[in-house]
Amino acid sequence: MKKLINDPDKTVIDSLSGFAQAHPELVKLCTNPLFVVRADAPVQGKVGVVSGGGSGHEPMHAGFVGTGMLDAACPGQVFTSPTPDQIEAATKAVNGGAGVLHIVKNYTGDIMNFEMAAELCQAAGIEVQAVVIDDDVAVENSLYTAGRRGVGTTVLAEKIVGAAAERGWGLPRLDGLCCKVNASGRSIGMALSPCTVPAAGKPTFQLGDNEMEMGIGIHGEPGRERMPLKSAREIAAQMAEAVLSDLPFRTGDSVIAFVNGMGATPLMELYLMYGELRAICRDRGVAVARSLVGNYITSLDMAGCSFTLLRSDDELLALWDDPVLTPGLRWGI
Amino acid sequence: MKKLINDPDKTVIDSLSGFAQAHPELVKLCTNPLFVVRADAPVQGKVGVVSGGGSGHEPMHAGFVGTGMLDAACPGQVFTSPTPDQIEAATKAVNGGAGVLHIVKNYTGDIMNFEMAAELCQAAGIEVQAVVIDDDVAVENSLYTAGRRGVGTTVLAEKIVGAAAERGWGLPRLDGLCCKVNASGRSIGMALSPCTVPAAGKPTFQLGDNEMEMGIGIHGEPGRERMPLKSAREIAAQMAEAVLSDLPFRTGDSVIAFVNGMGATPLMELYLMYGELRAICRDRGVAVARSLVGNYITSLDMAGCSFTLLRSDDELLALWDDPVLTPGLRWGI
Repeated sequence: MKKLINDPDKTVIDSLSGFAQAHPELVKLCTNPLFVVRADAPVQGKVGVVSGGGSGHEPMHAGFVGTGMLDAACPGQVFTSPTPDQIEAATKAVNGGAGVLHIVKNYTGDIMNFEMAAELCQAAGIEVQAVVIDDDVAVENSLYTAGRRGVGTTVLAEKIVGAAAERGWGLPRLDGLCCKVNASGRSIGMALSPCTVPAAGKPTFQLGDNEMEMGIGIHGEPGRERMPLKSAREIAAQMAEAVLSDLPFRTGDSVIAFVNGMGATPLMELYLMYGELRAICRDRGVAVARSLVGNYITSLDMAGCSFTLLRSDDELLALWDDPVLTPGLRWGI
Repeated sequence: MKKLINDPDKTVIDSLSGFAQAHPELVKLCTNPLFVVRADAPVQGKVGVVSGGGSGHEPMHAGFVGTGMLDAACPGQVFTSPTPDQIEAATKAVNGGAGVLHIVKNYTGDIMNFEMAAELCQAAGIEVQAVVIDDDVAVENSLYTAGRRGVGTTVLAEKIVGAAAERGWGLPRLDGLCCKVNASGRSIGMALSPCTVPAAGKPTFQLGDNEMEMGIGIHGEPGRERMPLKSAREIAAQMAEAVLSDLPFRTGDSVIAFVNGMGATPLMELYLMYGELRAICRDRGVAVARSLVGNYITSLDMAGCSFTLLRSDDELLALWDDPVLTPGLRWGI
């Protein structure tokens, strides 16, 4: 294992400590229990938006804490759900009297622990709603999942719902908006190489020198198919077809197109894949209204990428365009 | 070689095509000869700022074209200098009547071709000045270099000088500012793994399973020393010492601290390294006034990182804080 780390068991806290020192104007790090909260939390009268999940997917989620996106993020150990006490403390820390929305990726541990935290908060008089993101078309059930996994649409949901919360929307309306985003987004990922969890010290799976895995999960969970390495164009076609045919996206649809890197794939290749995706959308009559290209929901040092398409309308695009100021995503401020 | 590409000889143009489609509001791609220019170029009365170099270091330089940074970037083939005709065309495209500044990394081919382009432009009546960045403390001469290599300080120079150009500074004053930034910045890099040039198809060098290379160049050029893999803390200490002792940085200095990823190193590890660097600076009485952590000057799919420290004063910090709106760096707009 070749990593820039000290003690493998302290990687998460060591990294978060550096992260918080790099962005003191945006975030605060709370360590007992562990969560990251926006520097000016709680914002009175605003619904708090909280997410979280296992670490190893940076910048998600802590990198999206700030103005116009998340109010707090709860990082678990690497690829491990955060505990209910983390989520409970984060929820209480961002409660400005208007309730809190939990955005939860569909993994069994995450669901369970967010539910438990929500109950504890509700018992303490805080209104909490939760929306589960399950946008990965690759497989129906998976290693850590009943139903579909939650992946790239999570980033888009956090941006869009965070913008609406900043505008002052109430909790029921935000809940509906987040459900709409989840219902309108579809994703699929692929890997050229496995990733290595620091505390494990060896790759989560093995791939041959000329093999790739289509439909991979963000923890290295098996995908649809292991296959010989193909050209970018062939890979993009297969990924786009899986996503487009699922919703399905139709001629005339307008989308936000998100090409995401798994962590070890250079930007040069991600932009190349974006060009391929654009060409496919053009051929299908799907208009790319906005785009996002880069490493936003990663899988440690995995090489590969994912595609997310989100069917959008004027409401979603306007919220997408709203200012955002977080360590990982910023514009308009 | 496992990469998301089609024809290895067309990787640069395929990637730039996707890049330009992702950021049409910020940049235009010109293809004959090849360069990237800000969408509203030329800006009348403003000094144009142009950089360029071999591809494979994305987002540098094309990702820094936009408002408040570069007016144009000239991408060569992977790890290959851009040709004089590219630089000449880019310089002419951004000339708003106030002259053009070239920011050139110290590599023999880059120097030669930027000089030739400058002469051609001067013959056509355009005032051109060039500043060479040579901030890498690792080695004095290198595979492609007489003197020190130009690395991380280039990103900081492009931001700071680009901001001053946006403010309306004249060419001689920008020239002086860029020299000051170069004189105040020092960098060093290290690699955990080699990188693979698409057209070559095999790694640029070999590293054992427990080896790292200290002082690596951004094209995989040999560094100071190949050594057994160490902890993040030990690596950071060695890198920081090389940088701090070179200028030298002294107790009471204020710096912009830049921890850069080589392309395949996850953000989690970069923030961890930033935390280590912060602790070292604190112990030395060096104040970190601003910071930048992420993949900004990469080396294809190399794993590793670099440290850059830039001694700063109120002038440099104010220019650093100025708004910037480019695909790779944006704040305040």
